[in-house]
Amino acid sequence: MGESLSDIGEKEILNRLKRFVSSGQISDDTAEINSLGKKLLINTDVLVEGVHFDSLTTSPSDVGWRAITANISDLAASGVDQLIGVTIGLIAPPETPWNWVEELYVGMKESLRPFQGEILGGDCSKGSARIVAITAIGTLGPLRLHRANAVPGDWIVTSGPHGLSRLGLALLQTETIVQSSSLSNELKAKSIEAHKRPTVPMQSLKNLITSKPKDLPWRAAGTDSSDGLLEAIKNLCESSNCQALIERDKLPTNPEWPLGKLWEEWCLNGGEDFELVLSLPPSWAKEWIKINPLSKAIGIMRAGKPNIFWANNLQKINLEVDFQHF
Amino acid sequence: MGESLSDIGEKEILNRLKRFVSSGQISDDTAEINSLGKKLLINTDVLVEGVHFDSLTTSPSDVGWRAITANISDLAASGVDQLIGVTIGLIAPPETPWNWVEELYVGMKESLRPFQGEILGGDCSKGSARIVAITAIGTLGPLRLHRANAVPGDWIVTSGPHGLSRLGLALLQTETIVQSSSLSNELKAKSIEAHKRPTVPMQSLKNLITSKPKDLPWRAAGTDSSDGLLEAIKNLCESSNCQALIERDKLPTNPEWPLGKLWEEWCLNGGEDFELVLSLPPSWAKEWIKINPLSKAIGIMRAGKPNIFWANNLQKINLEVDFQHF
Repeated sequence: MGESLSDIGEKEILNRLKRFVSSGQISDDTAEINSLGKKLLINTDVLVEGVHFDSLTTSPSDVGWRAITANISDLAASGVDQLIGVTIGLIAPPETPWNWVEELYVGMKESLRPFQGEILGGDCSKGSARIVAITAIGTLGPLRLHRANAVPGDWIVTSGPHGLSRLGLALLQTETIVQSSSLSNELKAKSIEAHKRPTVPMQSLKNLITSKPKDLPWRAAGTDSSDGLLEAIKNLCESSNCQALIERDKLPTNPEWPLGKLWEEWCLNGGEDFELVLSLPPSWAKEWIKINPLSKAIGIMRAGKPNIFWANNLQKINLEVDFQHF
Repeated sequence: MGESLSDIGEKEILNRLKRFVSSGQISDDTAEINSLGKKLLINTDVLVEGVHFDSLTTSPSDVGWRAITANISDLAASGVDQLIGVTIGLIAPPETPWNWVEELYVGMKESLRPFQGEILGGDCSKGSARIVAITAIGTLGPLRLHRANAVPGDWIVTSGPHGLSRLGLALLQTETIVQSSSLSNELKAKSIEAHKRPTVPMQSLKNLITSKPKDLPWRAAGTDSSDGLLEAIKNLCESSNCQALIERDKLPTNPEWPLGKLWEEWCLNGGEDFELVLSLPPSWAKEWIKINPLSKAIGIMRAGKPNIFWANNLQKINLEVDFQHF
């Protein structure tokens, strides 16, 4: 039978698929379509029950909201100007309650509203599990963000705090650690909201465009932190072939965030934060931070083999993440 | 738990989904995107192992070829001008051989080649079954075909013969009926090819545009016969609120097609023929047929409750089709 997908792993699968793919989305967040003078961004994500979401613990409207948000987040991390809409491929077992599907679509519509995006169409079929395949399409603005655009000397910046979604999950699952922590009700509520109804920092992206110093070209690297902050930085490093130094005391957390190993871990690897993670020339980064109250500079890029180090002791930051979907 | 998807059926599911969908593809073959002066067509299809294809009897490259063809066929039936590309969402169990995936993509690339379309990107994940979700996008030409554009007095025409794909399947499965029939080797080969490697009649679509009489507006109804010829006509009738009279002696079959109930049934309901089924003003239909050797006029539209009748005796043609995917 030859080697199986589990033999070679997702990374290698994607690598092997590259030769079939003309542009961006395999190695970047989206693919670009040059459509008669106007460039569009298009992105497809699949979400599988039991892999990306759990129907027993997540309401269908939250599944729908997050599915759309994750997709728009990829468009934002590539420089989308205006969302056009999404198509939805839905698969579900015949015994699925209609309500589940309806609420899923309600959640999707709700999450599209602030972006004035439409559900353009789709398809549905029976299958053994619940699966949502979403394709989002939007127009590209003046700044095309690529993962591969970072250069040594850049500042690494992010549009907001990280770890909230992971904390929200812990609270919803009443994990022991959060029961014994003294957290304000405000932080708890914010974290649960961040987990159930994450948002895309579209205003931060618009601010990125208006804050560019006139003497700089439109060159910036970007991705989103849907798979975690460290994973995002790692992707920038690997695509740009440079290394990151991260300031341990500048991690982007909520002001009330507790100290400790676990909390640092959640900031770095919690995932599903959907913030922009950018690599920018310092002067651009400074201007952007000025007008983005939640944004933060967290490190710099330097020449060298792709790796991430703590800036103070040059210790390698070890990733123990599992966002592989095979 | 309330009613399930199997309780209400696919039709009602789609009907209920309509209120969430801004445009076309739920009630038509594709959705239209008005992108700054240039309209695009986008279409998403999901294909599920065991529902739409059988991995045991169909090679992965044939699965890939047909998946893409089905999708492009929907764009053609809406008036695509130029295919831009497709995105692919792939789900497969971890134990799936890599070769299966590779060959799937090979088949997809092969089918895209004549249209100069690209695989723009995609996503993949594990899941319990093999599933392919395809989104195709292309630019819209001067003629926007809609299912709802038929009017009484139109001719019903189709771009080519029907039933070949079904015969091909019968031959591949060595069904008894075809073993006892005397069929030429040429017809057998053609039918197997039509089943394994169907094509989209893109030239017929181009001819439709060049053959329009100058005095007529750009008004034509169209769909494709992927779910069978009768199903296509039924969809035109229902969307346009009119009824079809079909000439029994003008069914669009291969010249060597045998006579008999089963063979007529395969022409009407075989499915996967991917021909254009159009409703046109007679003068346009005549011009189109002149330059399309395989095309055929098979009936007319008239006012009345959506139904399909034999023209000679006004007997209702009963559909016994099952293309419901729930």
